[in-house]
Amino acid sequence: MEQIDILVSEVGPRDGLQSLQQIMPTAAKCEWISLLAAAGVREVEVGSFVPASVLPQMADTAEVVAHAKTIPGLDVAVLVPNLRGAENAVKAGADKISIPLSVSETHSLKNVRRSHTQMLEEIHSIAELIAAQPAERRPYFEVGLSTAFGCTLEGPVSEELVVRLAVLAIEAGAAEVGLSDTTGYANPAQVRRLVKKVWDAVGRERLNGVHLHNTRGQGLANALAAMDIGITTVDASMGGIGGCPFAPGASGNIVTEDLVFLVEAMGLRTGIDFDGLLRARNYLAGALPGVEIFGFTPEAGLPRGFQNT
Amino acid sequence: MEQIDILVSEVGPRDGLQSLQQIMPTAAKCEWISLLAAAGVREVEVGSFVPASVLPQMADTAEVVAHAKTIPGLDVAVLVPNLRGAENAVKAGADKISIPLSVSETHSLKNVRRSHTQMLEEIHSIAELIAAQPAERRPYFEVGLSTAFGCTLEGPVSEELVVRLAVLAIEAGAAEVGLSDTTGYANPAQVRRLVKKVWDAVGRERLNGVHLHNTRGQGLANALAAMDIGITTVDASMGGIGGCPFAPGASGNIVTEDLVFLVEAMGLRTGIDFDGLLRARNYLAGALPGVEIFGFTPEAGLPRGFQNT
Repeated sequence: MEQIDILVSEVGPRDGLQSLQQIMPTAAKCEWISLLAAAGVREVEVGSFVPASVLPQMADTAEVVAHAKTIPGLDVAVLVPNLRGAENAVKAGADKISIPLSVSETHSLKNVRRSHTQMLEEIHSIAELIAAQPAERRPYFEVGLSTAFGCTLEGPVSEELVVRLAVLAIEAGAAEVGLSDTTGYANPAQVRRLVKKVWDAVGRERLNGVHLHNTRGQGLANALAAMDIGITTVDASMGGIGGCPFAPGASGNIVTEDLVFLVEAMGLRTGIDFDGLLRARNYLAGALPGVEIFGFTPEAGLPRGFQNT
Repeated sequence: MEQIDILVSEVGPRDGLQSLQQIMPTAAKCEWISLLAAAGVREVEVGSFVPASVLPQMADTAEVVAHAKTIPGLDVAVLVPNLRGAENAVKAGADKISIPLSVSETHSLKNVRRSHTQMLEEIHSIAELIAAQPAERRPYFEVGLSTAFGCTLEGPVSEELVVRLAVLAIEAGAAEVGLSDTTGYANPAQVRRLVKKVWDAVGRERLNGVHLHNTRGQGLANALAAMDIGITTVDASMGGIGGCPFAPGASGNIVTEDLVFLVEAMGLRTGIDFDGLLRARNYLAGALPGVEIFGFTPEAGLPRGFQNT
């Protein structure tokens, strides 16, 4: 496959769809994911293994994983909240498992009713589960440090705590940590500072990705800051679906289409074809009637004479 | 006055209002500008000296300049399209005069019906006019290189042409040049490259500012790129009014409120107080019934525990 510089990891089928009232039919999810892959998207977070009673939008995740696994070259990622979810993810054959660990313990207790210690035990159990699998069935295991840039409940969070939890997550058996701006609080200086602090503590190869929100319009500036210093994976959601839309045009998640334009315009390769991305976007819009689909670049169009790398 | 790191130059009263159908009454413009200054905004482009037949929204620019001049510490900037406009600007007592020079000659011919040579002659005449004034009445004279990052008519523009026109504008008597992404085509790599090329040709002190659009959602990322390498003046428009809004939430101009948040969150000083900015925004919204006012940060609110520098 063609070499890429930046992995744009599409989280719309999980982070986007789980926040909508309406439930996208399984066949539509599968078609959307196929169109994303056809556009050149290399990694998609296709769903989340949570109880259907909590998130009925994600009840078909095993089926969606099964479909996504048939697409050559696609890394199939899922979110899990706990060991039970990880067991289902392993059973389904996911290539990558992510579990969120909230740096704000207040947020963690409120959100998943678990302390840091309890979460780290869960992470350790998942790592053991994965290690017990035959090599070809071992998913890559990442811990996403959520509220890493601040918390709506606690306010600023300690950078030293972020670093400490990163170290503990790796010690508990995660292959990698990610930094998540769950609240849209991050600024570019903070992104650079925090990434470097975590690198100093766990090594560069243990932190490759950021998950940024656009709540205050800073998403792409923060992504640029991260990529400038060497971050190579940036999460984004097609049409900016998901997250907490406060304002017209404000999405929780970075808009995939605008991020791909940013990266490609700078001459860095995503492997993603813009026309293909628009086909996936059009399909998504049709499959989610009444849901607002964001994104500046698709509306404005590519610049005259613009060439994908 | 308190030292600042980044000058956020407010262009809403000119660039924003001139693009609206409705005409804001003179008293409302004056009150809005007073509120902007009260929030700590140091420079406002208050209007444009163009024939009222062309832009009736700007017919009262002399009166608005007269009011703005009474505000202590405020730099009062105006746009002029030609020598005639500059004469009026000097008469009105503007502190700063900007004239756009389009790098795309196709755009220049279509927009102001003048070739590069004709525009450079106009710039030379304006410089002579300014030099002939008594020292205390000489406005600062800037040439804004528009379509510097690409043109909707020509497509990509030559960076060597941008540099050549910058040199010629300085030789013709401009104190400074600025780079304008009129079309929203710019990307951060290009911003850094082009600023450095112009610096190499005319000296750093001759290029301090950029005027960026958010048409493809890249405005703040481009502003960050510019500030990272040492650009100290960034234009923005309150509520993102003006420019070419293609998409919901898409403004032509960078939103002042989001830019101020970006800069202050990084620990750089704008001298601008966010509460004061919101008062000016609320006034603006009330004075422009039916006009969509953009901005992510005002809708989402400042992060919990956030402190202005």
